[in-house]
Amino acid sequence: MTHEAGIPLGIRFKLLSDTPQDSAAQVVSDVVIGDYRDLDTLREFAQGCDVITFDHEHVPTEHLRALEADGIPVRPGPDALQHAQDKGVMRAKLDAIGVPCPRHRIVADPADVAAFAAEGLPEGAEDDGFPVILKTVRGGYDGKGVWVVRSVEDAAEPFRAGVPVLAEEKVDFVRELAANVVRSPHGQAVAYPVVESQQVNGVCDTVIAPAPDLDEALALRAEEMALRIAKELDVVGHLAVELFQTRDGRILVNELAMRPHNSGHWTQDGAITSQFANHVRAVLDLPLGDPRPRAPWTVMVNVLGGDYPDMYSAYLHCMARDPRLKIHMYGKDVKPGRKVGHVNTYGDDLDDALDRARHAAGYLRGTITE
Amino acid sequence: MTHEAGIPLGIRFKLLSDTPQDSAAQVVSDVVIGDYRDLDTLREFAQGCDVITFDHEHVPTEHLRALEADGIPVRPGPDALQHAQDKGVMRAKLDAIGVPCPRHRIVADPADVAAFAAEGLPEGAEDDGFPVILKTVRGGYDGKGVWVVRSVEDAAEPFRAGVPVLAEEKVDFVRELAANVVRSPHGQAVAYPVVESQQVNGVCDTVIAPAPDLDEALALRAEEMALRIAKELDVVGHLAVELFQTRDGRILVNELAMRPHNSGHWTQDGAITSQFANHVRAVLDLPLGDPRPRAPWTVMVNVLGGDYPDMYSAYLHCMARDPRLKIHMYGKDVKPGRKVGHVNTYGDDLDDALDRARHAAGYLRGTITE
Repeated sequence: MTHEAGIPLGIRFKLLSDTPQDSAAQVVSDVVIGDYRDLDTLREFAQGCDVITFDHEHVPTEHLRALEADGIPVRPGPDALQHAQDKGVMRAKLDAIGVPCPRHRIVADPADVAAFAAEGLPEGAEDDGFPVILKTVRGGYDGKGVWVVRSVEDAAEPFRAGVPVLAEEKVDFVRELAANVVRSPHGQAVAYPVVESQQVNGVCDTVIAPAPDLDEALALRAEEMALRIAKELDVVGHLAVELFQTRDGRILVNELAMRPHNSGHWTQDGAITSQFANHVRAVLDLPLGDPRPRAPWTVMVNVLGGDYPDMYSAYLHCMARDPRLKIHMYGKDVKPGRKVGHVNTYGDDLDDALDRARHAAGYLRGTITE
Repeated sequence: MTHEAGIPLGIRFKLLSDTPQDSAAQVVSDVVIGDYRDLDTLREFAQGCDVITFDHEHVPTEHLRALEADGIPVRPGPDALQHAQDKGVMRAKLDAIGVPCPRHRIVADPADVAAFAAEGLPEGAEDDGFPVILKTVRGGYDGKGVWVVRSVEDAAEPFRAGVPVLAEEKVDFVRELAANVVRSPHGQAVAYPVVESQQVNGVCDTVIAPAPDLDEALALRAEEMALRIAKELDVVGHLAVELFQTRDGRILVNELAMRPHNSGHWTQDGAITSQFANHVRAVLDLPLGDPRPRAPWTVMVNVLGGDYPDMYSAYLHCMARDPRLKIHMYGKDVKPGRKVGHVNTYGDDLDDALDRARHAAGYLRGTITE
């Protein structure tokens, strides 16, 4: 999708990909197959690149520092990126700059988890403070590496990987929001409207832009918070700040992503400039494009793999039913539950846009058959 | 741009390209370098393709028939495509189906041109009937292969190529319009709003969508005419019908193009479904997308090469000046006068959109420096 956004600007990509089957490798003309964890591979790949950017955050920080030492601009840079790679580093930094987060600390073992749970209790409570959220500080995504722990006995599992474990309070939230911003090396930044993000089984299902019935002051606070995080962490490119809107009216930071993000896919059809185009522009230190929406409502629904491997045959029905539907498929093999694409709808009527997007995503998956 | 539109649908292209420098060859991953005039090259290339389509009309008709005989679907097919390849065939067909064209006939030599000129005169006129338009029936584009001939002495040049020459009256038009339609093999068709196309030195400069102050009945007639041509000629994919709006209120067909066309580039940012996406959908016999505009006005201005080979440095100024500007560059080497890209603007105010698009195109070319 970033390549797609680069084409009209005449920006050409060289892609380092794990396999020729990767989504991007199917559509980019200059592809090197190799392992991003191997420094020699990265160094050879980087030859002749004007700048390096990412569609995931897993390239080891020390390798990125080596590339920078070789004189290759890396955007976002390792100093910023470590906050999206390590949840412990991220929480410490957000604490330091005064950004509200769920109560949290690194925990050593199940007994320490029980202590953390009890620390959150009001004096004299009879409760044990559970449930608690445990996360490995590295390597998680889409609900992987995250556990909802209901007792000290449940708390053993997350420690088995040997990775530091972060404990967080289970936030009493009314919904999840996301604030997407883009920042360029010379410090220009733009903010997309704050969206509502609905999860199913820990995986993003639906995004509504803008977030319905969101208090204007709260929306502004979320945008300002995201812009401040981008600045304080020296992010270059797209930053997605996933947020909890709590029952008592606060917003707390859940996660950070430093790349075009699922919560910004709606911008492809719903904003004047998409998150992908603005990420490319930021990484190249070009002036950023207008992030404002083009329609009153835009809805994105993820398409998950179902039981039928061939989604193409569902195009006929989906396209005939809704000529305004925008389909974005990733060319991935269909496996049950795997994100293989998304659909966008937009218009003046939110319910209509939601219905159309949910129907198309369900039909493509095979859970709706008419 | 067709590849760009195919990416979100998961449609993968294999490209036959003259050189690795061609615009499409820079961005498509599966490229074969070869000559489209060579049947063996075409046959080998076509192996494994589900369907073949084009970004120009110059593949020899007999080669396309050979591919069809091999069982490869060719869309648009050779029977349709010959009308976009040969202006003599096109005029004969449009006459046969009663579509209004400028007065025309194939001419044999300069004396015959003079006779053609005189045939158009009212009885007793003292005029000689010149100027007359001469066109080689094949191979012309962007004003090449077209002559405005003012006397019998001027008329020798077009015959030198040894290609049949078509004479046409010089139409007294108030402006040029274009009607863009897309048709699929099962006969579904959609019509984009009729646009105004402004030429400079025989090259398309500006397209305004929809055509300003166009009488609604005339617009409808133009759309119906384009849909009827698509049907009668059995066009599959995008059909652009270039039209003259005459001083006396008629519309006459100037040229046909059977592929995504310059007069439809505005649809990338201005329509719900772009001409490129709809061309892909038509060629694959998928239901077509909604062709309606997303904004009251969309303006496209072509970017021509200027004296400076590096247009990228102009991005800074253009993007900073107008964050809503949509730039589409083709990755071509800049040569003076060569079409190397286009810009789109849209909004509620036509004058504003025109100003912004013209400024950006001029700045990129180097004719505007502030």
